[in-house]
Amino acid sequence: MSGLFIVCLSGQREKLQFAAMTASVAAVSGTEVSVFISMNAFPFFIRGHGKEASAEGAMGEIMAQKNVLSFYQIFEQAVELGDAKVYACSMAMDIMEVKETELEGIVSGAMGLTRFLSDAEGAQILIF
Amino acid sequence: MSGLFIVCLSGQREKLQFAAMTASVAAVSGTEVSVFISMNAFPFFIRGHGKEASAEGAMGEIMAQKNVLSFYQIFEQAVELGDAKVYACSMAMDIMEVKETELEGIVSGAMGLTRFLSDAEGAQILIF
Amino acid sequence: MSGLFIVCLSGQREKLQFAAMTASVAAVSGTEVSVFISMNAFPFFIRGHGKEASAEGAMGEIMAQKNVLSFYQIFEQAVELGDAKVYACSMAMDIMEVKETELEGIVSGAMGLTRFLSDAEGAQILIF
Repeated sequence: MSGLFIVCLSGQREKLQFAAMTASVAAVSGTEVSVFISMNAFPFFIRGHGKEASAEGAMGEIMAQKNVLSFYQIFEQAVELGDAKVYACSMAMDIMEVKETELEGIVSGAMGLTRFLSDAEGAQILIF
Repeated sequence: MSGLFIVCLSGQREKLQFAAMTASVAAVSGTEVSVFISMNAFPFFIRGHGKEASAEGAMGEIMAQKNVLSFYQIFEQAVELGDAKVYACSMAMDIMEVKETELEGIVSGAMGLTRFLSDAEGAQILIF
Repeated sequence: MSGLFIVCLSGQREKLQFAAMTASVAAVSGTEVSVFISMNAFPFFIRGHGKEASAEGAMGEIMAQKNVLSFYQIFEQAVELGDAKVYACSMAMDIMEVKETELEGIVSGAMGLTRFLSDAEGAQILIF
């Protein structure tokens, strides 16, 4: 009912790309979108970290060759044009010893899983 | 509320098998099921492409040895017996340069992500 | 509406860890949680089977080094403190030729996919 909640765990190109496209499409069409970044998706949102994700299969390899907009650029668009919010999982930050000031500018801030699940109560949650 | 929306991204046997079983069980019990095929799940739905998915782990290997109905056969049943609809992601078709006439018969047609998400508004979406 | 339904398919540490944390957080905060164990997540719930899942990426490796509570311990907490229910997929049991008496004590019993999907009708379903 109240928005779309996207959880990114995988560090693979295909999953990140599809998650980003979903966030972008939904945000631009007026849905409130919250993206929760954890596990192997998390490092890409640390400032200065590379934004190239490794491919899981043939589709990821072809996307890497062709000039497809990268997942990171699509997330940027979702935030800038569609007002999607990207949150970093506070547990992932603890484990990797990353502070909030070290995160990329498109990240709105740190969030705990408890808060995220509470905000997402009754809404659509997609796990990537 | 209005149906079950299944997104297949992974090209691995276990994920495809479970997605197909879910589509089949739901469709046969009267739920309207829409399956959206993209990323590494997409090539299996190109006419003439092999239908053997590689195993992610022990379960996929055992399923390959035993005479378990394949994910593709289960999707066929979901479409034939349960009236599930299978749609090919138009972005995946563009990237792989595949035309609608080259898709398998169980695919109802091409669909964009925007349309799929709009149709799925407020309903259950499962990402595989 | 009625509870949170979690499906564990992946045998990778990151996915299992996040699924377990989600189950635990939701259960402890009063949500009815049902966890359905299948595919490569299933063997970990056979009595005596190792509880170490292999890492998918950097985060899983760091978690393995640090003294993070394991996914299995978190599932135990979800069951003991939060009254979450863990069910073994009857199809996975058939394929692996495992009987209900061979399952770990935290598993409430075997369940078919048809029953699980029926129980989950209209509720949040998360696929890991």
